[in-house]
Amino acid sequence: MNETPSDIRTEIADLGEFGLIDHLTKLFIPTNTSTVKSIGDDSAVLNPENKHVVITTDMMVEGVHFDLAYFPLKHLGYKAIVSNLSDVYAMNAIPVQVTVSISVSNRYSVEALEVLYEGIRLACESYQVDLVGGDTTASLRGLVISVTAIGIQEAEKICYRNGAKPGDHIYVSGELGASYLGLQLLEREKQIYLSNPGIQPDLENQKYLIGKFLKPEAQRETIDWLEKAGIIPHAMIDLSDGLSSDLMHICKQSQCGAEIEESLIPINEQTKWMALKFHMDPLTCALNGGEDYELLLCVSPQDSDKVRMFPGLIYIGQIKESAFGVQLKSNSNNLHPLKAQGWVHF
Amino acid sequence: MNETPSDIRTEIADLGEFGLIDHLTKLFIPTNTSTVKSIGDDSAVLNPENKHVVITTDMMVEGVHFDLAYFPLKHLGYKAIVSNLSDVYAMNAIPVQVTVSISVSNRYSVEALEVLYEGIRLACESYQVDLVGGDTTASLRGLVISVTAIGIQEAEKICYRNGAKPGDHIYVSGELGASYLGLQLLEREKQIYLSNPGIQPDLENQKYLIGKFLKPEAQRETIDWLEKAGIIPHAMIDLSDGLSSDLMHICKQSQCGAEIEESLIPINEQTKWMALKFHMDPLTCALNGGEDYELLLCVSPQDSDKVRMFPGLIYIGQIKESAFGVQLKSNSNNLHPLKAQGWVHF
Repeated sequence: MNETPSDIRTEIADLGEFGLIDHLTKLFIPTNTSTVKSIGDDSAVLNPENKHVVITTDMMVEGVHFDLAYFPLKHLGYKAIVSNLSDVYAMNAIPVQVTVSISVSNRYSVEALEVLYEGIRLACESYQVDLVGGDTTASLRGLVISVTAIGIQEAEKICYRNGAKPGDHIYVSGELGASYLGLQLLEREKQIYLSNPGIQPDLENQKYLIGKFLKPEAQRETIDWLEKAGIIPHAMIDLSDGLSSDLMHICKQSQCGAEIEESLIPINEQTKWMALKFHMDPLTCALNGGEDYELLLCVSPQDSDKVRMFPGLIYIGQIKESAFGVQLKSNSNNLHPLKAQGWVHF
Repeated sequence: MNETPSDIRTEIADLGEFGLIDHLTKLFIPTNTSTVKSIGDDSAVLNPENKHVVITTDMMVEGVHFDLAYFPLKHLGYKAIVSNLSDVYAMNAIPVQVTVSISVSNRYSVEALEVLYEGIRLACESYQVDLVGGDTTASLRGLVISVTAIGIQEAEKICYRNGAKPGDHIYVSGELGASYLGLQLLEREKQIYLSNPGIQPDLENQKYLIGKFLKPEAQRETIDWLEKAGIIPHAMIDLSDGLSSDLMHICKQSQCGAEIEESLIPINEQTKWMALKFHMDPLTCALNGGEDYELLLCVSPQDSDKVRMFPGLIYIGQIKESAFGVQLKSNSNNLHPLKAQGWVHF
């Protein structure tokens, strides 16, 4: 009988720490000119080519941020990279390098980690970033992934959260709420499976929602387009905590208010339908769902006509004076203050 | 009755994720001109001032890398930073920023994390680096700390592992093996305490060994001195895995051999004495102990007279042709091949 790769189990201990790092990273070939020295020295070396450097980091913990019952390791690797690149794009910078540290218990085989790193490699190739370092250690239990992403950009093009000005037009780069409902769907199927292992989940028709949760993409096209169009937003943030919470970050740091309109918030029909099936309000899912990894941009009204030309960008409201607060204009033309309600892990 | 701070227990959940980050980082004030934007945006922003950027990252896991039975949280925070800065200095670069991500279970109180961050802050202040980002998440069990350190240096001054040349003189920046014996000592006291909690450990006379393990320092003085003396080593590495293992990294990457002399390897009298008490060979502790965070430098013979002037640097041998191998000349003038034997966590 031929053994398929999934039948083979190699223990991490068979390779040792250095052997494991070599094994997992041998397929990663640096391609960026800014990468001077990749894995293999005390530190990686980067040539920022006279630009500024942006740096962001995130940690994902098994049982807290992901459940391997329904989160394939390949997708997990992909998402761990993409969620960090999203924070680089949100500065209007171009990601060039990542480091990846993992701690894993001996419950994991080398083959399982290969699948995780396959997802990491796919994301690196897709977004043209180089894996240049990291750490691989044991854990007593479960898997922890810590990713740091590094980007470069000319100083004057970097977008902060604190640059929004009253009158700025607010855009988002895509539909909201789908990732949250993808998660709800997977959680429900897990519960069904646990109470009756005979029932196989049928998620074929839910590729959109589940895909948005398991394999989100970062908004490179938006950043590339802004560069080509010569537009620098006044402020930008990525929608990881949820539109409400993230818009409030912008308003707090820019010392301004905002009005967004219910009728303009882009929600996919599948998201609406599934929300109703879960007895949830689709708007609440879009405002507070989180993990959409779309960008929120505040652009000068003068730039707004140009921005509207880019099919990916959707106008949802305007920045106001601070005294206005951060409010949602409902379809019935009433104003409701937004509430921050991001992800709560603790 | 007055409550002392140690009597108070605030649950992490009372602050929430954003509140916790704000609370733990409020005392960190960036001071480096290269720090353009610190905590509070999607990414931190750094101006490398036309220099190259070096980046290194390490992950420390409770129960694998540290045991809180004898590792005070303040020291843990300090060491987590210092061990990463050591990797920046090993590139002959100047550390300027760090990011710190932690995952913690709700067993930890806010006060415990304050103590951890107090150690992080002490290290940042002592080495003049800015904390510019990170992540704070829940864990199902224990504490994981992931630190990324960023340094800058002119391209032509960066030292790699692959630049050693036959004839180069090998120096180390200080005494070896103490950290390993500090760990053995603490492990022994823990076992004694566990089998008889009535016996209080008396470690007062062991401040040197325990200090080397619990509160190591990175070799900034050496790097500062090299800059002033105008010397750029051909190759450099920090001794985190142990002299044998780390010298072999240099030799492998530089495609050369090396001869170091037993009689020249610096071992403190307290290290020797404690090794013998543990029925260990002091030389083995110095060669394979690890976590000393001293630097190993390979310098041109022309620079060697100058390097000898710096009191911190100790000559231990020479780089040889590859065919020579990596060997130790014993006190009886016999040659023994060195073996790599670093830390094994898996």
